[in-house]
Order: sequence, then structure tokens, then C-alpha cells
Amino acid sequence: MNKPANTQHPVHELIRNRWSPRAFSDRPVPPELLQQVFEAARWAASSFNEQPWSYIVATRDNPQEHGLALSCLVEANQQWAKHAPVLILTVVRKTFAKNGKPNRCREHDLGLADGNICIQATALGLMVHQMAGVNLEQVRHTYQIPDTHEPFSAIAIGYPGGEAEIARLPEQFQEGETAPRTRKPLDQFVFSRRFGSKANLVG
Amino acid sequence: MNKPANTQHPVHELIRNRWSPRAFSDRPVPPELLQQVFEAARWAASSFNEQPWSYIVATRDNPQEHGLALSCLVEANQQWAKHAPVLILTVVRKTFAKNGKPNRCREHDLGLADGNICIQATALGLMVHQMAGVNLEQVRHTYQIPDTHEPFSAIAIGYPGGEAEIARLPEQFQEGETAPRTRKPLDQFVFSRRFGSKANLVG
Repeated sequence: MNKPANTQHPVHELIRNRWSPRAFSDRPVPPELLQQVFEAARWAASSFNEQPWSYIVATRDNPQEHGLALSCLVEANQQWAKHAPVLILTVVRKTFAKNGKPNRCREHDLGLADGNICIQATALGLMVHQMAGVNLEQVRHTYQIPDTHEPFSAIAIGYPGGEAEIARLPEQFQEGETAPRTRKPLDQFVFSRRFGSKANLVG
Repeated sequence: MNKPANTQHPVHELIRNRWSPRAFSDRPVPPELLQQVFEAARWAASSFNEQPWSYIVATRDNPQEHGLALSCLVEANQQWAKHAPVLILTVVRKTFAKNGKPNRCREHDLGLADGNICIQATALGLMVHQMAGVNLEQVRHTYQIPDTHEPFSAIAIGYPGGEAEIARLPEQFQEGETAPRTRKPLDQFVFSRRFGSKANLVG
């Protein structure tokens, strides 16, 4: 399902074409492509180059590991994510490794790395759906996350599904697969001089 | 200055070529390109499509606005960012607009939008340097950020500098412009089964 963003200004096709489906093909993702996806995360920017992100990955060719990752998602996400061939749990380190001080940028910088995952996956013909709906305590327990780190989110990756994969989704998710993508206009979040005052450059 | 990432696995050129310089050309960034950069941020994913990010932008063709944004950076960042033709301050909304509940993903999702800014800017031949070193209280006061929102970081954007622009940097920053980029290997942050146990797919 292609639904390129309806943009006010041109953007790169990898940004225009990325969206978050729930219908995934059963086709496995080759390990070489997953390597590239994590390599992309690796090269994100981060405060003091701390690289506070970690990922725990499970693929459907190992049903036990995939089931364990799936069980950490909230029920509504399990309903569709069970078909995703790759599930990832994200984890951040709370402090800077070099001095133990709190890293206030840790979640932001995880976002930068996760964004690179989206870009690289899109470049490889894959789709990504990030989830906040995760049982974080269960992740901590299941994967023995140390106190120095925090579980944060989950990511499903796979090839796009077609009509059959949309049809097997629970009904409340089917419309979202074809609904247009929507965003606030630029003048609601690009300001100058003071907060809320739209920047001239956005018209 | 080109310094493509020394990758373990191939990644898209926009990820490979992005890095965070401090030496920027004086060449102004045309408004049409900045529009595209913010459009890219606009289409990032976010939890419940909240789009918690806002940006306050200042360009050097308005010296007063540029000076105001510059004054919100910590001294060490001011020393090089004064040459950047575009300065941006980032702001996040604390709660979901639709129900007022805390949005724990706000900083992560700002990171996704900021990541898109990096990708789009790189695609347009621009360079981006994100900064955590910001006087957040001064941002709040200067730009009248409401209590519902939090200032988070700053972003410098411009065309890459050359030898002359490196030479005018304070000495402690010059080496960084040509030093190789470094990252942890994949097996230190891509795990399976339990935290710290490297995933087979990373070798």
C-alpha cells in the first residue's frame, strides 16, 4: 500500500513514502537487510556521541524469541504485530558512560537512531511501525534489563502487506491501512520571534 | 568536508554522509530549502500522531533574531554557531493535545522529527549540527514558551565550510572537523534473548 505524504513543499522520497502500517507480509526479512537497518541506527548523531540506544531483536524464524517479544506488547499491538516478521524492543542508557551523569537527551537520541532505522528500512523496501504500547516492566524482566537502562518502545519491521494481509487484521485496524496520512500545517509549529508566532518562511 | 561513515554494512548515502560540523559557510540558506527541511520534520512518525515538536527559527539575514537565538546557546556553542546561517530552537509539548495526559514519547518523537531534518538537509547539500548545550530557561523566557511546553535543544544548519571556515574556528574545535567519525560496533548494542547478549545477525 503506497500512500505518499501530501506535502506543502517537496521532501525526499524516503521521507514522503514512509508510513506506519499494521499489515505486513509474511515474507521474512533477510539478515543482511537487518544488518543494514541497525547499521543506519549506529550512525545517528547523539549528545557527546554517547549512542545511548540498544535494540533487542527477534525474528519469526525463531518462534520462541518472536513470541517472547510479542508478549511484551500491549494486547492491541499484539493483534497485528504477531504477523510482523521482525520485532525489536528499544532500550536507552540513563547516564553518560564516561562520567555517570544523567543523559537528558537519551530518549531524543534514541529517536534519532530509530529515525535512521525508518529511513534505511524504507530504502530497502521495508515498512516500519513503532509502538509506545509496550509493557515496559515485562521487557525489563524478560530481557534482564539492568537498572542503568530503561526499556522504551517497540518496532515492527517487514515487507508491506497487500489486500489479504489487510483483510486478516482485526476490523478496527483495517481502515487505517488505506486512510490518508495527516499532519498539522507548517504554520502551526514553525515559529520566529516568539512561540506561536509563525515564521515568515512558512508563508 | 566529506567524511562518510566507515560502516560495517552498507547504508543509504544520506545516512552515511551526515555528520555534525562546526565550520559553516557564510552562504545563506534559501527559504525554499528551509521550507523543505521543516516539511520533512512534519512527516515524522509520532505516538498517536501527536506531532509534539515545535521549532523557532532565526536566520542571519535578520541579525537581531539570529543574535537572540545565539544568545540562548551555551558559550562554547556560541563560539562556532555564530557563523551558522540558520539557528533553530526546538520545543516539545508535554501532554497529548486531545486528552491532556503526559506524553512520555515527546522527546523521542522530537528526535524522529529532528532526524528527518538531518536527512532532508543532507539531501539538499546542507549540514546540521544539533546542540544539547542550550540555556533552556533563557529560551523559555526569550520566546515566551508556555508551561505546556518545554524547550529542548538547538540546531544549526548551513552549507559546509571549507579550510577558511575551519581556520576561523576556536582552536579546540578545529581537529573535530577532520577527525574520523567513530561509533560502537553493532555487537555492543544489537542483542537477542537477553540484554547484553549479541544477536546472531550482527556476527
